Amino acid sequence: MPDPINLDDKLDRFSETWTPKIIAALNGQHVKLAHLEGEFVWHAHAEEDELFFVARGRLRIEMRDGSVELGPGDLFVVPRGVEHRPVALPTASVMLFEPASTAHTGDVVSERTVTDLDWI
Amino acid sequence: MPDPINLDDKLDRFSETWTPKIIAALNGQHVKLAHLEGEFVWHAHAEEDELFFVARGRLRIEMRDGSVELGPGDLFVVPRGVEHRPVALPTASVMLFEPASTAHTGDVVSERTVTDLDWI
Repeated sequence: MPDPINLDDKLDRFSETWTPKIIAALNGQHVKLAHLEGEFVWHAHAEEDELFFVARGRLRIEMRDGSVELGPGDLFVVPRGVEHRPVALPTASVMLFEPASTAHTGDVVSERTVTDLDWI
Repeated sequence: MPDPINLDDKLDRFSETWTPKIIAALNGQHVKLAHLEGEFVWHAHAEEDELFFVARGRLRIEMRDGSVELGPGDLFVVPRGVEHRPVALPTASVMLFEPASTAHTGDVVSERTVTDLDWI
């Protein structure tokens, strides 16, 4: 019987920023955690909607036609195809929900693109 | 631009128990909230994994070969096909993540089966 997964416990197990860690998989989707600091790259996921749930800190999600700001307990879905840039204010820790196939920088490959994400 | 979705705000908008409300949809999945009290019916979902995230209270998920107990900030995935019975101790409020096609009582139709879930 697997143990329950505690968000705070898992978040405290790593400190790297912009490097999502997988904590669960279901129905072809991954649940990931990430620590964010400052701004990320503009990108979009052509085929995949992406859910951001803020556990700690504050996060602004900039899109080309507006932005939203999230605090702890807030979630937001960025629809597929929508260009977005996450900006932590100044730091945030998030739970992400997206297809297992999703690259976190979407269709943009940058120095921040991480493949082969680790499980924690 | 849609507003961010705040879990506490959405949880405070209804009080019925065992009646999930949809708060978001992505990639063919629904994110739902539910208030739970006492025990539910034993059931399984043949084709669908189900994620429970506890926002408030305590929840035991009984399975035929063991059980797990979750508090706020804990999540657990019940794999497809696994018979389970959620038992709130004595109440819990949860976020669920599962395919849009999932009936909350799985393959069991009981007086608690609710179809055509509402969005809040």
